[in-house]
Amino acid sequence: MTQLTLVIGNKNYSSWSLRPWLLMKQFELDFAEIRIPLYTPESISTLQQYSPSGKVPVLLHDDLTVWDSLAICEYIAETFPHLSCWPENKIARAFARSISAEMHSGFQNLRQNMPMNCRNKYPGQGLVTGVQQDINRITDIWEKCKQSFGANGKFLFGNFTIADAMFAPVAMRFIAYDVKLDSIARNYVQAIWELPAMQEWIKSAKNEIEVISKYEF
Amino acid sequence: MTQLTLVIGNKNYSSWSLRPWLLMKQFELDFAEIRIPLYTPESISTLQQYSPSGKVPVLLHDDLTVWDSLAICEYIAETFPHLSCWPENKIARAFARSISAEMHSGFQNLRQNMPMNCRNKYPGQGLVTGVQQDINRITDIWEKCKQSFGANGKFLFGNFTIADAMFAPVAMRFIAYDVKLDSIARNYVQAIWELPAMQEWIKSAKNEIEVISKYEF
Ligand SMILES: N[C@@H](CCC(=O)N[C@@H](CS)C(=O)NCC(=O)O)C(=O)O
Ligand SMILES: N[C@@H](CCC(=O)N[C@@H](CS)C(=O)NCC(=O)O)C(=O)O
Repeated sequence: MTQLTLVIGNKNYSSWSLRPWLLMKQFELDFAEIRIPLYTPESISTLQQYSPSGKVPVLLHDDLTVWDSLAICEYIAETFPHLSCWPENKIARAFARSISAEMHSGFQNLRQNMPMNCRNKYPGQGLVTGVQQDINRITDIWEKCKQSFGANGKFLFGNFTIADAMFAPVAMRFIAYDVKLDSIARNYVQAIWELPAMQEWIKSAKNEIEVISKYEF
Repeated sequence: MTQLTLVIGNKNYSSWSLRPWLLMKQFELDFAEIRIPLYTPESISTLQQYSPSGKVPVLLHDDLTVWDSLAICEYIAETFPHLSCWPENKIARAFARSISAEMHSGFQNLRQNMPMNCRNKYPGQGLVTGVQQDINRITDIWEKCKQSFGANGKFLFGNFTIADAMFAPVAMRFIAYDVKLDSIARNYVQAIWELPAMQEWIKSAKNEIEVISKYEF
Protein backbone atom coordinates (compact mmCIF):
# COMPACT_ATOMS: atom_id res chain seq x y z
CA MET A 1 0.00 0.00 0.00
CA THR A 2 1.28 3.40 -0.96
CA GLN A 3 1.49 6.32 1.42
CA LEU A 4 -1.01 9.18 1.35
CA THR A 5 -0.18 12.34 3.31
CA LEU A 6 -2.52 15.31 3.50
CA VAL A 7 -1.02 18.67 4.41
CA ILE A 8 -3.60 20.95 6.03
CA GLY A 9 -3.91 24.23 7.92
CA ASN A 10 -5.50 24.92 11.31
CA LYS A 11 -8.56 22.76 11.68
CA ASN A 12 -10.45 25.60 13.31
CA TYR A 13 -10.06 27.93 10.36
CA SER A 14 -8.89 26.20 7.21
CA SER A 15 -12.04 25.64 5.22
CA TRP A 16 -10.15 24.51 2.12
CA SER A 17 -8.29 21.87 4.12
CA LEU A 18 -11.50 20.43 5.53
CA ARG A 19 -12.81 19.42 2.10
CA PRO A 20 -10.33 16.70 1.05
CA TRP A 21 -9.75 15.69 4.68
CA LEU A 22 -13.45 14.97 5.16
CA LEU A 23 -13.64 13.14 1.85
CA MET A 24 -10.70 10.91 2.69
CA LYS A 25 -11.93 10.16 6.22
CA GLN A 26 -15.43 9.52 5.04
CA PHE A 27 -14.18 7.00 2.48
CA GLU A 28 -11.89 5.45 5.11
CA LEU A 29 -8.65 6.07 3.27
CA ASP A 30 -5.62 5.59 5.43
CA PHE A 31 -3.54 8.78 5.39
CA ALA A 32 -0.99 10.68 7.42
CA GLU A 33 -1.63 14.29 8.30
CA ILE A 34 0.72 17.25 8.49
CA ARG A 35 -0.81 20.32 10.09
CA ILE A 36 0.73 23.73 9.38
CA PRO A 37 -0.64 26.54 11.57
CA LEU A 38 -1.34 29.50 9.26
CA TYR A 39 -0.25 33.13 9.69
CA THR A 40 2.58 32.48 12.14
CA PRO A 41 6.13 33.72 11.47
CA GLU A 42 7.10 30.23 10.26
CA SER A 43 4.01 29.55 8.13
CA ILE A 44 5.27 30.81 4.79
CA SER A 45 8.53 28.86 4.82
CA THR A 46 6.83 25.69 6.06
CA LEU A 47 4.09 26.01 3.45
CA GLN A 48 6.70 26.44 0.72
CA GLN A 49 8.37 23.25 1.81
CA TYR A 50 5.27 21.23 0.97
CA SER A 51 3.10 23.29 -1.32
CA PRO A 52 3.88 24.49 -4.85
CA SER A 53 1.21 27.20 -4.49
CA GLY A 54 2.21 28.13 -0.94
CA LYS A 55 -1.30 27.14 0.17
CA VAL A 56 -2.98 24.22 1.83
CA PRO A 57 -4.36 21.64 1.26
CA VAL A 58 -1.73 19.54 -0.52
CA LEU A 59 -1.81 15.78 -0.99
CA LEU A 60 1.38 13.77 -1.24
CA HIS A 61 1.03 10.30 -2.73
CA ASP A 62 4.41 8.62 -2.88
CA ASP A 63 6.35 10.99 -5.14
CA LEU A 64 3.28 12.66 -6.62
CA THR A 65 2.08 16.07 -5.35
CA VAL A 66 -1.41 17.39 -5.98
CA TRP A 67 -2.68 20.66 -4.54
CA ASP A 68 -5.90 22.65 -4.39
CA SER A 69 -8.94 21.14 -2.71
CA LEU A 70 -10.86 20.40 -5.91
CA ALA A 71 -7.90 18.89 -7.75
CA ILE A 72 -7.19 16.67 -4.73
CA CYS A 73 -10.81 15.48 -4.71
CA GLU A 74 -10.65 14.70 -8.46
CA TYR A 75 -7.39 12.87 -7.88
CA ILE A 76 -8.89 10.74 -5.10
CA ALA A 77 -11.94 10.00 -7.27
CA GLU A 78 -9.75 8.89 -10.14
CA THR A 79 -7.27 6.90 -8.04
CA PHE A 80 -9.94 5.02 -6.07
CA PRO A 81 -12.74 4.53 -8.61
CA HIS A 82 -14.44 1.80 -6.55
CA LEU A 83 -15.30 4.41 -3.90
CA SER A 84 -17.69 6.36 -6.17
CA CYS A 85 -16.53 9.72 -4.86
CA TRP A 86 -18.66 11.34 -7.55
CA PRO A 87 -22.25 10.17 -8.17
CA GLU A 88 -22.36 7.19 -10.54
CA ASN A 89 -25.16 8.52 -12.72
CA LYS A 90 -23.84 10.74 -15.52
CA ILE A 91 -26.42 13.51 -15.15
CA ALA A 92 -26.00 13.56 -11.37
CA ARG A 93 -22.23 13.62 -11.77
CA ALA A 94 -22.38 16.59 -14.15
CA PHE A 95 -24.57 18.38 -11.60
CA ALA A 96 -22.18 17.48 -8.78
CA ARG A 97 -19.18 18.78 -10.71
CA SER A 98 -21.06 21.99 -11.60
CA ILE A 99 -22.03 22.85 -8.04
CA SER A 100 -18.61 21.87 -6.71
CA ALA A 101 -16.89 24.13 -9.24
CA GLU A 102 -19.40 26.94 -8.55
CA MET A 103 -18.52 26.62 -4.85
CA HIS A 104 -14.81 26.45 -5.59
CA SER A 105 -14.60 29.76 -7.43
CA GLY A 106 -17.59 31.63 -6.06
CA PHE A 107 -19.34 32.88 -2.93
CA GLN A 108 -16.60 35.40 -2.17
CA ASN A 109 -18.91 37.51 -0.04
CA LEU A 110 -19.78 34.63 2.24
CA ARG A 111 -16.21 33.40 2.38
CA GLN A 112 -14.78 36.79 3.25
CA ASN A 113 -17.36 37.87 5.76
CA MET A 114 -18.15 34.63 7.53
CA PRO A 115 -14.79 32.88 7.91
CA MET A 116 -15.10 29.28 9.04
CA ASN A 117 -14.75 28.84 12.76
CA CYS A 118 -15.36 25.42 14.24
CA ARG A 119 -15.14 26.32 17.94
CA ASN A 120 -16.61 29.81 18.31
CA LYS A 121 -20.12 31.05 17.61
CA TYR A 122 -20.91 34.53 16.30
CA PRO A 123 -24.67 34.48 15.77
CA GLY A 124 -25.88 37.20 13.42
CA GLN A 125 -22.39 38.48 12.57
CA GLY A 126 -21.03 38.84 9.06
CA LEU A 127 -24.34 39.37 7.29
CA VAL A 128 -23.12 42.34 5.23
CA THR A 129 -24.18 43.24 1.67
CA GLY A 130 -24.00 40.34 -0.74
CA VAL A 131 -23.76 37.61 1.89
CA GLN A 132 -27.49 36.84 2.00
CA GLN A 133 -27.45 36.51 -1.79
CA ASP A 134 -24.68 33.91 -1.53
CA ILE A 135 -26.62 32.08 1.20
CA ASN A 136 -29.75 32.07 -0.96
CA ARG A 137 -27.92 30.63 -3.94
CA ILE A 138 -26.33 27.92 -1.79
CA THR A 139 -29.60 26.82 -0.22
CA ASP A 140 -31.19 26.92 -3.67
CA ILE A 141 -28.46 24.57 -4.94
CA TRP A 142 -28.97 22.23 -1.97
CA GLU A 143 -32.72 22.12 -2.42
CA LYS A 144 -32.66 21.56 -6.18
CA CYS A 145 -29.99 18.92 -5.75
CA LYS A 146 -31.79 17.02 -3.01
CA GLN A 147 -35.05 17.16 -4.94
CA SER A 148 -33.49 15.88 -8.18
CA PHE A 149 -30.89 13.43 -6.91
CA GLY A 150 -30.85 13.16 -3.14
CA ALA A 151 -34.14 11.60 -2.08
CA ASN A 152 -32.55 8.36 -0.85
CA GLY A 153 -30.22 9.62 1.82
CA LYS A 154 -29.14 12.52 3.95
CA PHE A 155 -26.63 13.98 1.51
CA LEU A 156 -26.89 16.03 -1.66
CA PHE A 157 -26.89 12.94 -3.88
CA GLY A 158 -28.20 10.55 -1.24
CA ASN A 159 -24.84 9.06 -0.32
CA PHE A 160 -21.88 11.23 0.63
CA THR A 161 -19.91 12.51 -2.41
CA ILE A 162 -17.28 15.13 -3.21
CA ALA A 163 -20.05 17.72 -3.51
CA ASP A 164 -20.79 17.29 0.20
CA ALA A 165 -17.11 17.64 1.03
CA MET A 166 -17.02 20.87 -0.99
CA PHE A 167 -20.03 22.32 0.86
CA ALA A 168 -19.13 21.07 4.36
CA PRO A 169 -17.29 24.30 5.32
CA VAL A 170 -20.40 26.25 4.33
CA ALA A 171 -22.47 24.08 6.64
CA MET A 172 -20.00 24.86 9.45
CA ARG A 173 -20.31 28.58 8.71
CA PHE A 174 -24.10 28.39 8.83
CA ILE A 175 -23.78 26.85 12.31
CA ALA A 176 -21.20 29.35 13.59
CA TYR A 177 -23.15 32.40 12.43
CA ASP A 178 -26.54 30.85 13.19
CA VAL A 179 -27.82 31.55 9.68
CA LYS A 180 -31.62 31.31 9.30
CA LEU A 181 -32.46 28.32 7.10
CA ASP A 182 -35.56 26.50 6.00
CA SER A 183 -35.98 22.85 6.85
CA ILE A 184 -34.24 21.19 3.88
CA ALA A 185 -31.07 23.24 4.40
CA ARG A 186 -31.27 22.86 8.18
CA ASN A 187 -31.49 19.07 7.94
CA TYR A 188 -28.61 18.99 5.51
CA VAL A 189 -26.40 21.12 7.79
CA GLN A 190 -27.30 18.75 10.61
CA ALA A 191 -26.31 15.71 8.51
CA ILE A 192 -22.89 17.21 7.81
CA TRP A 193 -22.39 18.16 11.45
CA GLU A 194 -23.29 14.65 12.65
CA LEU A 195 -20.72 12.87 10.49
CA PRO A 196 -18.26 11.11 12.79
CA ALA A 197 -15.39 12.49 10.70
CA MET A 198 -16.80 16.03 11.04
CA GLN A 199 -17.04 15.55 14.82
CA GLU A 200 -13.45 14.36 14.89
CA TRP A 201 -12.34 17.49 12.98
CA ILE A 202 -14.32 19.78 15.32
CA LYS A 203 -12.82 18.10 18.38
CA SER A 204 -9.30 18.70 17.07
CA ALA A 205 -10.22 22.30 16.19
CA LYS A 206 -11.32 22.87 19.78
CA ASN A 207 -8.00 21.55 21.03
CA GLU A 208 -5.93 23.87 18.87
CA ILE A 209 -4.29 26.73 20.73
CA GLU A 210 -3.61 29.14 17.87
CA VAL A 211 -5.88 32.15 17.42
CA ILE A 212 -5.99 34.00 14.08
CA SER A 213 -7.54 37.27 15.13
CA LYS A 214 -8.57 38.44 11.64
CA TYR A 215 -10.89 35.41 11.52
CA GLU A 216 -12.53 36.18 14.86
CA PHE A 217 -15.14 38.88 15.57
CA MET B 1 -24.77 12.32 -32.85
CA THR B 2 -26.09 14.24 -29.94
CA GLN B 3 -26.29 18.03 -29.81
CA LEU B 4 -23.79 20.12 -27.87
CA THR B 5 -24.60 23.80 -27.28
CA LEU B 6 -22.27 26.16 -25.47
CA VAL B 7 -23.77 29.30 -23.97
CA ILE B 8 -21.18 32.08 -23.68
CA GLY B 9 -20.88 35.81 -22.97
CA ASN B 10 -19.29 38.56 -25.06
CA LYS B 11 -16.21 37.17 -26.75
CA ASN B 12 -14.33 40.37 -26.11
CA TYR B 13 -14.73 40.19 -22.36
CA SER B 14 -15.90 36.81 -21.12
CA SER B 15 -12.74 35.07 -20.00
CA TRP B 16 -14.63 32.19 -18.41
CA SER B 17 -16.49 31.51 -21.65
CA LEU B 18 -13.28 31.35 -23.65
CA ARG B 19 -11.98 28.34 -21.72
CA PRO B 20 -14.45 25.60 -22.72
CA TRP B 21 -15.03 27.23 -26.12
CA LEU B 22 -11.33 27.00 -26.96
CA LEU B 23 -11.14 23.44 -25.65
CA MET B 24 -14.08 22.31 -27.75
CA LYS B 25 -12.86 24.07 -30.90
CA GLN B 26 -9.34 22.81 -30.43
CA PHE B 27 -10.61 19.23 -30.15
CA GLU B 28 -12.91 19.79 -33.14
CA LEU B 29 -16.14 19.05 -31.37
CA ASP B 30 -19.18 20.10 -33.31
CA PHE B 31 -21.23 22.49 -31.18
CA ALA B 32 -23.80 25.24 -31.46
CA GLU B 33 -23.15 28.55 -29.75
CA ILE B 34 -25.51 30.91 -27.96
CA ARG B 35 -23.97 34.27 -27.15
CA ILE B 36 -25.51 36.39 -24.39
CA PRO B 37 -24.13 39.94 -24.21
CA LEU B 38 -23.44 40.66 -20.52
CA TYR B 39 -24.53 43.67 -18.45
CA THR B 40 -27.35 44.78 -20.74
CA PRO B 41 -30.90 45.30 -19.41
CA GLU B 42 -31.87 41.87 -20.79
CA SER B 43 -28.81 39.96 -19.63
CA ILE B 44 -30.06 38.71 -16.29
CA SER B 45 -33.30 37.26 -17.59
CA THR B 46 -31.62 35.67 -20.61
CA LEU B 47 -28.88 34.20 -18.41
CA GLN B 48 -31.48 32.75 -16.07
CA GLN B 49 -33.16 31.05 -19.00
CA TYR B 50 -30.06 28.96 -19.68
CA SER B 51 -27.89 29.02 -16.60
CA PRO B 52 -28.67 27.60 -13.15
CA SER B 53 -26.00 29.89 -11.64
CA GLY B 54 -27.00 32.93 -13.71
CA LYS B 55 -23.50 32.91 -15.20
CA VAL B 56 -21.81 31.80 -18.36
CA PRO B 57 -20.44 29.47 -19.64
CA VAL B 58 -23.06 26.72 -19.67
CA LEU B 59 -22.98 23.56 -21.77
CA LEU B 60 -26.17 21.88 -22.91
CA HIS B 61 -25.82 18.29 -24.06
CA ASP B 62 -29.21 16.93 -25.05
CA ASP B 63 -31.15 17.23 -21.77
CA LEU B 64 -28.06 17.53 -19.57
CA THR B 65 -26.86 20.93 -18.30
CA VAL B 66 -23.39 21.53 -16.96
CA TRP B 67 -22.11 24.92 -15.91
CA ASP B 68 -18.91 26.53 -14.72
CA SER B 69 -15.85 26.47 -16.97
CA LEU B 70 -13.93 23.83 -15.04
CA ALA B 71 -16.88 21.46 -14.63
CA ILE B 72 -17.59 21.79 -18.36
CA CYS B 73 -13.98 20.89 -19.16
CA GLU B 74 -14.14 17.84 -16.86
CA TYR B 75 -17.41 16.84 -18.49
CA ILE B 76 -15.90 17.06 -21.99
CA ALA B 77 -12.85 15.08 -20.83
CA GLU B 78 -15.05 12.35 -19.40
CA THR B 79 -17.52 12.24 -22.29
CA PHE B 80 -14.86 12.11 -25.00
CA PRO B 81 -12.07 10.07 -23.41
CA HIS B 82 -10.37 9.36 -26.75
CA LEU B 83 -9.51 13.08 -27.03
CA SER B 84 -7.12 13.05 -24.04
CA CYS B 85 -8.27 16.45 -22.82
CA TRP B 86 -6.13 15.90 -19.74
CA PRO B 87 -2.53 14.61 -20.05
CA GLU B 88 -2.43 10.81 -20.21
CA ASN B 89 0.36 10.38 -17.69
CA LYS B 90 -0.96 10.22 -14.12
CA ILE B 91 1.63 12.54 -12.59
CA ALA B 92 1.21 15.07 -15.40
CA ARG B 93 -2.57 14.84 -15.07
CA ALA B 94 -2.41 15.53 -11.32
CA PHE B 95 -0.22 18.55 -12.06
CA ALA B 96 -2.62 19.73 -14.78
CA ARG B 97 -5.61 19.44 -12.48
CA SER B 98 -3.74 21.27 -9.70
CA ILE B 99 -2.76 24.26 -11.82
CA SER B 100 -6.18 24.40 -13.47
CA ALA B 101 -7.90 24.45 -10.09
CA GLU B 102 -5.40 27.01 -8.75
CA MET B 103 -6.27 29.20 -11.75
CA HIS B 104 -9.99 28.59 -11.30
CA SER B 105 -10.21 29.89 -7.75
CA GLY B 106 -7.21 32.19 -7.56
CA PHE B 107 -5.46 35.18 -9.08
CA GLN B 108 -8.20 37.58 -8.01
CA ASN B 109 -5.89 40.57 -8.23
CA LEU B 110 -5.03 39.90 -11.84
CA ARG B 111 -8.59 39.07 -12.76
CA GLN B 112 -10.02 42.18 -11.20
CA ASN B 113 -7.42 44.67 -12.38
CA MET B 114 -6.63 43.37 -15.83
CA PRO B 115 -9.99 42.31 -17.28
CA MET B 116 -9.68 40.33 -20.48
CA ASN B 117 -10.02 42.47 -23.58
CA CYS B 118 -9.41 40.83 -26.93
CA ARG B 119 -9.63 43.94 -29.13
CA ASN B 120 -8.17 46.83 -27.11
CA LYS B 121 -4.66 47.30 -25.76
CA TYR B 122 -3.86 49.06 -22.50
CA PRO B 123 -0.11 48.68 -22.13
CA GLY B 124 1.10 49.19 -18.57
CA GLN B 125 -2.39 49.59 -17.10
CA GLY B 126 -3.76 47.54 -14.24
CA LEU B 127 -0.46 46.79 -12.54
CA VAL B 128 -1.69 47.68 -9.03
CA THR B 129 -0.62 46.02 -5.76
CA GLY B 130 -0.80 42.25 -5.84
CA VAL B 131 -1.04 41.91 -9.62
CA GLN B 132 2.69 41.41 -10.20
CA GLN B 133 2.64 38.67 -7.56
CA ASP B 134 -0.11 36.88 -9.47
CA ILE B 135 1.83 37.29 -12.72
CA ASN B 136 4.96 35.87 -11.10
CA ARG B 137 3.13 32.83 -9.79
CA ILE B 138 1.55 32.19 -13.20
CA THR B 139 4.82 32.40 -15.10
CA ASP B 140 6.40 30.22 -12.43
CA ILE B 141 3.67 27.60 -13.03
CA TRP B 142 4.18 27.78 -16.79
CA GLU B 143 7.94 27.41 -16.52
CA LYS B 144 7.86 24.51 -14.06
CA CYS B 145 5.20 22.81 -16.12
CA LYS B 146 6.99 23.17 -19.42
CA GLN B 147 10.25 21.99 -17.87
CA SER B 148 8.70 18.92 -16.28
CA PHE B 149 6.10 17.90 -18.84
CA GLY B 150 6.06 20.18 -21.87
CA ALA B 151 9.34 19.69 -23.69
CA ASN B 152 7.77 18.05 -26.73
CA GLY B 153 5.44 20.76 -27.94
CA LYS B 154 4.36 24.36 -27.62
CA PHE B 155 1.85 23.86 -24.84
CA LEU B 156 2.10 23.31 -21.10
CA PHE B 157 2.11 19.53 -21.46
CA GLY B 158 3.43 19.44 -25.01
CA ASN B 159 0.06 18.93 -26.68
CA PHE B 160 -2.90 21.20 -25.98
CA THR B 161 -4.87 20.17 -22.86
CA ILE B 162 -7.51 21.62 -20.53
CA ALA B 163 -4.73 23.37 -18.61
CA ASP B 164 -3.99 25.48 -21.69
CA ALA B 165 -7.67 26.30 -22.08
CA MET B 166 -7.77 27.42 -18.45
CA PHE B 167 -4.76 29.72 -18.88
CA ALA B 168 -5.66 31.07 -22.34
CA PRO B 169 -7.49 34.14 -20.95
CA VAL B 170 -4.38 34.96 -18.92
CA ALA B 171 -2.31 34.84 -22.09
CA MET B 172 -4.78 37.27 -23.70
CA ARG B 173 -4.46 39.58 -20.69
CA PHE B 174 -0.67 39.53 -20.91
CA ILE B 175 -1.00 40.65 -24.53
CA ALA B 176 -3.58 43.37 -23.87
CA TYR B 177 -1.63 44.91 -20.98
CA ASP B 178 1.78 44.24 -22.56
CA VAL B 179 3.03 42.46 -19.46
CA LYS B 180 6.83 42.04 -19.32
CA LEU B 181 7.67 38.34 -19.63
CA ASP B 182 10.77 36.24 -19.97
CA SER B 183 11.19 34.05 -23.03
CA ILE B 184 9.45 30.84 -21.88
CA ALA B 185 6.30 32.72 -20.93
CA ARG B 186 6.48 34.92 -24.03
CA ASN B 187 6.72 31.92 -26.34
CA TYR B 188 3.83 30.25 -24.57
CA VAL B 189 1.63 33.34 -24.88
CA GLN B 190 2.52 33.44 -28.57
CA ALA B 191 1.54 29.75 -28.98
CA ILE B 192 -1.89 30.41 -27.47
CA TRP B 193 -2.37 33.53 -29.59
CA GLU B 194 -1.49 31.67 -32.80
CA LEU B 195 -4.04 28.90 -32.34
CA PRO B 196 -6.52 29.09 -35.23
CA ALA B 197 -9.38 28.76 -32.74
CA MET B 198 -7.97 31.66 -30.69
CA GLN B 199 -7.73 33.77 -33.84
CA GLU B 200 -11.32 32.93 -34.68
CA TRP B 201 -12.43 34.03 -31.20
CA ILE B 202 -10.45 37.29 -31.44
CA LYS B 203 -11.95 38.05 -34.85
CA SER B 204 -15.47 37.64 -33.48
CA ALA B 205 -14.55 39.78 -30.45
CA LYS B 206 -13.45 42.56 -32.77
CA ASN B 207 -16.77 42.38 -34.60
CA GLU B 208 -18.84 42.72 -31.44
CA ILE B 209 -20.47 46.10 -30.99
CA GLU B 210 -21.17 46.03 -27.23
CA VAL B 211 -18.88 48.01 -24.92
CA ILE B 212 -18.78 47.22 -21.19
CA SER B 213 -17.24 50.36 -19.81
CA LYS B 214 -16.23 48.93 -16.44
CA TYR B 215 -13.90 46.58 -18.32
CA GLU B 216 -12.25 49.37 -20.33
CA PHE B 217 -9.65 51.85 -19.07
N1 LIG C 1 -8.14 27.23 -4.17
C1 LIG C 1 -7.38 26.70 -3.06
C2 LIG C 1 -7.38 27.67 -1.92
C3 LIG C 1 -6.40 27.31 -0.84
C4 LIG C 1 -6.27 28.40 0.23
O1 LIG C 1 -6.55 29.56 0.02
N2 LIG C 1 -5.78 27.97 1.42
C5 LIG C 1 -5.55 28.86 2.53
C6 LIG C 1 -6.00 28.25 3.85
S1 LIG C 1 -7.69 27.75 3.89
C7 LIG C 1 -4.07 29.10 2.71
O2 LIG C 1 -3.27 28.20 2.51
N3 LIG C 1 -3.67 30.30 3.11
C8 LIG C 1 -2.32 30.58 3.47
C9 LIG C 1 -1.73 31.69 2.67
O3 LIG C 1 -2.38 32.13 1.68
O4 LIG C 1 -0.64 32.13 3.05
C10 LIG C 1 -7.97 25.35 -2.71
O5 LIG C 1 -9.11 25.08 -3.10
O6 LIG C 1 -7.28 24.53 -2.08
N1 LIG D 1 -16.66 30.13 -11.88
C1 LIG D 1 -17.43 30.45 -13.06
C2 LIG D 1 -17.41 31.94 -13.29
C3 LIG D 1 -18.39 32.38 -14.36
C4 LIG D 1 -18.54 33.88 -14.45
O1 LIG D 1 -18.27 34.63 -13.48
N2 LIG D 1 -19.02 34.36 -15.62
C5 LIG D 1 -19.25 35.77 -15.86
C6 LIG D 1 -18.79 36.16 -17.25
S1 LIG D 1 -17.11 35.82 -17.61
C7 LIG D 1 -20.74 36.05 -15.84
O2 LIG D 1 -21.53 35.24 -16.28
N3 LIG D 1 -21.15 37.22 -15.35
C8 LIG D 1 -22.48 37.66 -15.42
C9 LIG D 1 -23.07 37.99 -14.10
O3 LIG D 1 -22.46 37.68 -13.07
O4 LIG D 1 -24.18 38.57 -14.12
C10 LIG D 1 -16.84 29.67 -14.23
O5 LIG D 1 -15.69 29.19 -14.10
O6 LIG D 1 -17.52 29.46 -15.24
